[in-house]
Amino acid sequence: MSLLIKNGTVVNEDAMFKADILVSDGVIVEIGSSLKAGNDFQVLDAEGKMVIPGGIDPHTHMQLPFMGGVAVDDFYHGTRAALAGGTTMIIDFVIPTKESTPLPAYKEWREWADPKVCCDYGLSMAITSWNPKVEREMEEVVKPEYGINSFKFFLAYAGMFMVHDDEFYQGLLTCSRVGALARVHAENGPVIAEKSKALLKQGITGPEGHAQSRPEELEAEATNRACVLASQANCPLYVVHVMSNGAAKAIAHHRQKGNVIFGEPIAAGLAVDGSHYYNKDWCHAARYVMSPPLSRDPSTPEALMDLLAAGELHLTGTDNCTFNCEQKMAGRHDFTKIPNGVNGVEDRMSVVWDKGVHTGKIDPMRFVQITSSMAAKIFNIYPKKGRIAVGSDADIVIWNPTATRTISKNTHHHAVDFNIFEGMTVHGVTEITISRGRVVWMNNTLTVEAGSGRFIPLKPFSPIAFATIQQRAKVNNTI
Amino acid sequence: MSLLIKNGTVVNEDAMFKADILVSDGVIVEIGSSLKAGNDFQVLDAEGKMVIPGGIDPHTHMQLPFMGGVAVDDFYHGTRAALAGGTTMIIDFVIPTKESTPLPAYKEWREWADPKVCCDYGLSMAITSWNPKVEREMEEVVKPEYGINSFKFFLAYAGMFMVHDDEFYQGLLTCSRVGALARVHAENGPVIAEKSKALLKQGITGPEGHAQSRPEELEAEATNRACVLASQANCPLYVVHVMSNGAAKAIAHHRQKGNVIFGEPIAAGLAVDGSHYYNKDWCHAARYVMSPPLSRDPSTPEALMDLLAAGELHLTGTDNCTFNCEQKMAGRHDFTKIPNGVNGVEDRMSVVWDKGVHTGKIDPMRFVQITSSMAAKIFNIYPKKGRIAVGSDADIVIWNPTATRTISKNTHHHAVDFNIFEGMTVHGVTEITISRGRVVWMNNTLTVEAGSGRFIPLKPFSPIAFATIQQRAKVNNTI
Amino acid sequence: MSLLIKNGTVVNEDAMFKADILVSDGVIVEIGSSLKAGNDFQVLDAEGKMVIPGGIDPHTHMQLPFMGGVAVDDFYHGTRAALAGGTTMIIDFVIPTKESTPLPAYKEWREWADPKVCCDYGLSMAITSWNPKVEREMEEVVKPEYGINSFKFFLAYAGMFMVHDDEFYQGLLTCSRVGALARVHAENGPVIAEKSKALLKQGITGPEGHAQSRPEELEAEATNRACVLASQANCPLYVVHVMSNGAAKAIAHHRQKGNVIFGEPIAAGLAVDGSHYYNKDWCHAARYVMSPPLSRDPSTPEALMDLLAAGELHLTGTDNCTFNCEQKMAGRHDFTKIPNGVNGVEDRMSVVWDKGVHTGKIDPMRFVQITSSMAAKIFNIYPKKGRIAVGSDADIVIWNPTATRTISKNTHHHAVDFNIFEGMTVHGVTEITISRGRVVWMNNTLTVEAGSGRFIPLKPFSPIAFATIQQRAKVNNTI
Amino acid sequence: MSLLIKNGTVVNEDAMFKADILVSDGVIVEIGSSLKAGNDFQVLDAEGKMVIPGGIDPHTHMQLPFMGGVAVDDFYHGTRAALAGGTTMIIDFVIPTKESTPLPAYKEWREWADPKVCCDYGLSMAITSWNPKVEREMEEVVKPEYGINSFKFFLAYAGMFMVHDDEFYQGLLTCSRVGALARVHAENGPVIAEKSKALLKQGITGPEGHAQSRPEELEAEATNRACVLASQANCPLYVVHVMSNGAAKAIAHHRQKGNVIFGEPIAAGLAVDGSHYYNKDWCHAARYVMSPPLSRDPSTPEALMDLLAAGELHLTGTDNCTFNCEQKMAGRHDFTKIPNGVNGVEDRMSVVWDKGVHTGKIDPMRFVQITSSMAAKIFNIYPKKGRIAVGSDADIVIWNPTATRTISKNTHHHAVDFNIFEGMTVHGVTEITISRGRVVWMNNTLTVEAGSGRFIPLKPFSPIAFATIQQRAKVNNTI
Repeated sequence: MSLLIKNGTVVNEDAMFKADILVSDGVIVEIGSSLKAGNDFQVLDAEGKMVIPGGIDPHTHMQLPFMGGVAVDDFYHGTRAALAGGTTMIIDFVIPTKESTPLPAYKEWREWADPKVCCDYGLSMAITSWNPKVEREMEEVVKPEYGINSFKFFLAYAGMFMVHDDEFYQGLLTCSRVGALARVHAENGPVIAEKSKALLKQGITGPEGHAQSRPEELEAEATNRACVLASQANCPLYVVHVMSNGAAKAIAHHRQKGNVIFGEPIAAGLAVDGSHYYNKDWCHAARYVMSPPLSRDPSTPEALMDLLAAGELHLTGTDNCTFNCEQKMAGRHDFTKIPNGVNGVEDRMSVVWDKGVHTGKIDPMRFVQITSSMAAKIFNIYPKKGRIAVGSDADIVIWNPTATRTISKNTHHHAVDFNIFEGMTVHGVTEITISRGRVVWMNNTLTVEAGSGRFIPLKPFSPIAFATIQQRAKVNNTI
Repeated sequence: MSLLIKNGTVVNEDAMFKADILVSDGVIVEIGSSLKAGNDFQVLDAEGKMVIPGGIDPHTHMQLPFMGGVAVDDFYHGTRAALAGGTTMIIDFVIPTKESTPLPAYKEWREWADPKVCCDYGLSMAITSWNPKVEREMEEVVKPEYGINSFKFFLAYAGMFMVHDDEFYQGLLTCSRVGALARVHAENGPVIAEKSKALLKQGITGPEGHAQSRPEELEAEATNRACVLASQANCPLYVVHVMSNGAAKAIAHHRQKGNVIFGEPIAAGLAVDGSHYYNKDWCHAARYVMSPPLSRDPSTPEALMDLLAAGELHLTGTDNCTFNCEQKMAGRHDFTKIPNGVNGVEDRMSVVWDKGVHTGKIDPMRFVQITSSMAAKIFNIYPKKGRIAVGSDADIVIWNPTATRTISKNTHHHAVDFNIFEGMTVHGVTEITISRGRVVWMNNTLTVEAGSGRFIPLKPFSPIAFATIQQRAKVNNTI
Repeated sequence: MSLLIKNGTVVNEDAMFKADILVSDGVIVEIGSSLKAGNDFQVLDAEGKMVIPGGIDPHTHMQLPFMGGVAVDDFYHGTRAALAGGTTMIIDFVIPTKESTPLPAYKEWREWADPKVCCDYGLSMAITSWNPKVEREMEEVVKPEYGINSFKFFLAYAGMFMVHDDEFYQGLLTCSRVGALARVHAENGPVIAEKSKALLKQGITGPEGHAQSRPEELEAEATNRACVLASQANCPLYVVHVMSNGAAKAIAHHRQKGNVIFGEPIAAGLAVDGSHYYNKDWCHAARYVMSPPLSRDPSTPEALMDLLAAGELHLTGTDNCTFNCEQKMAGRHDFTKIPNGVNGVEDRMSVVWDKGVHTGKIDPMRFVQITSSMAAKIFNIYPKKGRIAVGSDADIVIWNPTATRTISKNTHHHAVDFNIFEGMTVHGVTEITISRGRVVWMNNTLTVEAGSGRFIPLKPFSPIAFATIQQRAKVNNTI
Repeated sequence: MSLLIKNGTVVNEDAMFKADILVSDGVIVEIGSSLKAGNDFQVLDAEGKMVIPGGIDPHTHMQLPFMGGVAVDDFYHGTRAALAGGTTMIIDFVIPTKESTPLPAYKEWREWADPKVCCDYGLSMAITSWNPKVEREMEEVVKPEYGINSFKFFLAYAGMFMVHDDEFYQGLLTCSRVGALARVHAENGPVIAEKSKALLKQGITGPEGHAQSRPEELEAEATNRACVLASQANCPLYVVHVMSNGAAKAIAHHRQKGNVIFGEPIAAGLAVDGSHYYNKDWCHAARYVMSPPLSRDPSTPEALMDLLAAGELHLTGTDNCTFNCEQKMAGRHDFTKIPNGVNGVEDRMSVVWDKGVHTGKIDPMRFVQITSSMAAKIFNIYPKKGRIAVGSDADIVIWNPTATRTISKNTHHHAVDFNIFEGMTVHGVTEITISRGRVVWMNNTLTVEAGSGRFIPLKPFSPIAFATIQQRAKVNNTI
């Protein structure tokens, strides 16, 4: 199983250069010019193409049981779609119910994922309740045998996943202590709950009510609050799905004060806006329901990309969590019951290229950084993932920077019956995807096998997040 | 001439890892564990130390003829001091007078520098007047045989170096066209001139008048203006010596709007404040005179480091330009005649470590980035410089992260009779400096030779600055 | 009981002019030049002085039962001190316990205050728990017979006064509906509680722990949150005791987006900083304990005054709530038990003049506005109070703009055994205070009578706060 | 000539109340309830209406000789239009050519205006060149016999009106010294000149080139610069025609730092955007040409109104300067030759009400302030103008807050053949205009006489602008 990729332009986050690449046993073994391969090598010509690290999607919810349904993109379909789009690793979330705790939930998720995944994957853990047992199991799951190095807290979904400020703060202290990144879903849950009740009472039951019950200000508020609490707890923070300009500005504000914060916009938020919630076709509108909602300010997608360009936001995810129309219909008469979630894992790479590179906002190196390298660093698997380098995993994409494709549910590889980017023609196309040294996507054809992906344990104390933490603690203690 | 560096922790901008390094013929040839060396190899043990890319100081003025004197750190003493402090490359400035033009000035500078430099160096070119000949020679000096890829414009020094907005804008357009970075000294020259006259008339003639004639607001104003003009000209911008919070915030503001801007604070501004201008010892006060002046707001040095940490500022220089007390005395009765300039090239690395890493604000990887890698990228010599990698120049520093040293004019290697950091005890010490594979600083001893450094031509269209420019031009033209 | 004030410069918020003033029956009856008075008139010469509306302190806690003690400035001593300093009206707070409700608490407060007050007063009502009875009684107390037109919510004091976000939001909706201003004490209570526990566990028990448990960021966070929630509820908001730059900037940020918000810094915050918490004399340090704490950033007092000057903050209060050393000693071994509160009602006018007008930041008209007129407008008693105009109450101060006095506990009129401004020499002195047409302070002598002040009922739907609310509701409903 | 206005709601900037008003000899003589009038009084019933101070337009250019033409709204037609719209005073500009000086230009303007004006007017003086004579004449024209208390500087119109930074700074120092407000047209002239040349060279000659040659960033830049220079010169600043969000934010930024700055958006900028520059009808597009141009960001008008509401901007003008299509045709083949200017003086009051009050952003009191009182204060004629008060000039408008009217060139009273608000239906209508006690507009009919308006000399050292200046100078000198 060896490969030679010839004549391409290798793009890493820090440099671009012409080179050939030799892959053997799933690993990159040589990078240089005019490399030669043995007879048993598969040779791929990348002339005129870019050779980039496979994408890493740091935020997916495959087959998530949520709001009465289960996401239709399971770990098989979801990772297939990922590979077709040039993403070779995902980080999914274990989400215990309020009654459960981390350990049993972890096992459940591994049982779901391991037999199905077609690409490598890692796991992040949600903390949806707070008590001594939860805290103890947080300490447990960061051990190598579990491989969790991040915990996510919800400030929204009151009564379901939400933690209160005192609980969140305790969780942040624990994260800081065990070397795990804190991730946060930032919206003001209690006010959303009140607004939802009021809207339903007024007779506003459709998807537009979802947007109206979750004004952007409530995302910005909670984001600001999360940044402050994390700073107080001396804990690095990762804000998932930054959907509005206000939230992004809150992150920038606190970063300028010296806090360690990472902001993740998602493919949906970079390309689509909230006007869809007013679409007259109920199902169309409902398919865009996710939280925080897509911004109704049409300037938001471009503003988010500008902030990615400026380094105020840091990497791109998708929050891929898909439900069919039939499932969305659970909220036919009450928008609060529409299962939240949209697609993205397949199209993220193209969407980011189209909105970022094709518009002149970012260059190919920054593209690699925000689609792959930064995720690898944050989750402590760099440069094994996220870089074209000798010794790195051969998760590689041959990228056509000038080709275009038109996104459609008719051609996508998701299990879901819709695509929120339907009809968008994007510049930047994944021609070939290589997963651990095997060509899995070429000529628009997938060649994958369920369970062939591996679970990648993630080690705590990721340097990019934690290398300053001890020193910060020391300095702050003397104040 | 071969070296083996054993047992150190290699630090690059993107990762830290234990490894040995093999150097031969001035180049890094292998990085790995348990490397073996031949008999003729010099072996250096870096156990407990960091092995980092040699520092690159992007902003020096060795033996600059300026305000009636010539800077006493010439290319020999200046580069010696650099090496003693862990800096293995400098980028100096050719500054034609208003009557001259780029080409003859370039030749003059090469004649001064080539026989004296003890480390590698590159050149940047100041544009101090504007006419068709200047424009033509800008086009000329970006050619490979000259190796200039950046031009600096002064918005201060009215009547001496200053260009007016229309000239600056023309210069920016030319930079954009030829692929050269525009650098700017940002202060409002005309108002400074008026304020200086008024202060002298009021009888304020001492060094405090220097500070009072150049309020921070005038730096912030000109920085903001430069960012706007560069954006209008579709030209990447590099702001030299960012000395105040307001200027830094202006840069951050425009970066958030999507502009390509790099901000360079300097060692002096990160460690010293403007209270010195009020020192009763005239010579003491005069020695801190530089422009823009050191901030009289004591919170500025820390604020600048926070912005470096956040990625709002990007690399560190020194503006090293030293004059002895006797030279400073030219302004004994008129602060406008005090030759401007301070030291920094020797102490920058330690100062940045002490104020940045030791305080918990930045980690060692970011330290490498802002002292070396970013300069290498911006000036288009990465990864030949600025990275510990196979094939890179063996400009290497063995860094002791925990040792301390106390800065003093009695022990420094500058030619100047003062050190603005006198008495400061800093964490982070250069134990060994290797320049192109040769140990030049070890056991507190320099082993250098005048003229042993090479001139490094710098190629235009540096990707980090220019990779988005064409696409931006296209997009903006359609508006 | 008639008065003629001659030769002064009348200062209102909108104009300054030389004029005589005739007062009869507690009301201003004529303003003009060269006015003549009958024989029975008391004539006061204000040559070289300013004649200004008596100060209105919108934020006092006289004889408040709090943290185990009762504030020593009761309604008698507190209002005496007010008059001596040129303040002729206070607005105090009814604070029901969590077990009580508005109506019984209201009655209790009236019984305490009515027989004691020496100047006019109004009441604001705190809402410290949330249930249908509280909501009903809010509706009740806004009626004319009670005269409450503002409600205060605490986001701090977890477990004592604090309301949660959902309760606060419900309260804001109710305020909006009944035309009452929402006032907020903005600090993040849950995190303060956690930090306090942690500090005590670390052995930090002294007053510095009070400051450390309440970092400024927690005030800024809660202020931001309160602004967002108020905007969502379409309710005007009044932030009491703005103590930090971050909180003030949050207010400015949301005002720029079009929200109706008023910010009240207090005398203490404009003149004193948090370095006192580190005073080695425990009692000295404890006397400065209030919440939010005084800022440890020494640039804060000036920054707050700049924002008052710019119109980003709107009026000045004091939060006067005084405890003797003996009472403060309740927290001898646990800073969380130190009764919170400082003085201010006597010195506010001088402190604001000294820090605002004497520094050139604000002019005398703005001084009148932020010490009197704005409070009168916000609480809907303008121009009966807060203006020198025919028909207005004769609450008048003859102000010496150039005189100075030195503040001291030895000369103040408070009941408390300390003065946080001890030793400060301030420019701007109250020479004569006239309360409803009676001279009550002259020649450094008070002539007052307990119970002579009247309760001033405050009507809802104050135009400055509510005149746009209906229109806003209409416009927002169509989104 | 006496009037009784009955049953209206009087609205001043600080209060609203029901009252009758008695006017005699052009002055308000009584305000009260149930006032009685003699037989010779004209009685006006204002039941259900508001009675407000007549509007003051602080920024008009009647019959200005400009760019080869003369504005068609001369002092007769222009003031007629003003009165029909509820504006009872204008402040126009004397603009000397670069070759002339203040005094002769002043005389010329008075000769033009005095015989024609139908309402009261004042004058502001532009400073378009700098030399000792100009400075001396500035000192001269602030004397009572001339009555100039403000000077305007252009940072745009390079080569025509523009002053350079050093000249501007000298002018600011002079303004500060003589007690005159500095006003500024803030755009970066040199860059506009360069961009214009480049666009014309590219073949872009139409009105869209006007917009493209003057990007908003150039307005924000110059506004920021003007604020900094004014602060350095200790001079209050008035920014005319704030047209973009960036410029307004620059003002807010510097005000927060404590500077005295007033921002004036204009009717056009509050209601119309820059999409008109792309209208296919050349003449339509050309009619919107003014400088700075209308913003092409459709969110700008609302953002400017939000900032007026928040107090970041302070009053509204029009820059009324009208040219017929035929005159605009001078720039048929070169957008730089299109005479700049639009209408506004007639429609300002209705436009501000419609966009400000009808949208719930501001209340009627703030409406009065930003259309009248603030101008009166800034130009030092308050409360003679700008307030309904006993002793004030009877410049009064009876305002119907609920009526609507549709703006059209067919019904307006301008001399110009177009109206930029054509077809807009606005809420808020001037029913009756009273100028110095005479009804001049009623039942949609004007009853005016050329020359009946008076010239109002404006005194220097307006308190709202200058009351803090001396104190500031003192404080700053000690730094």
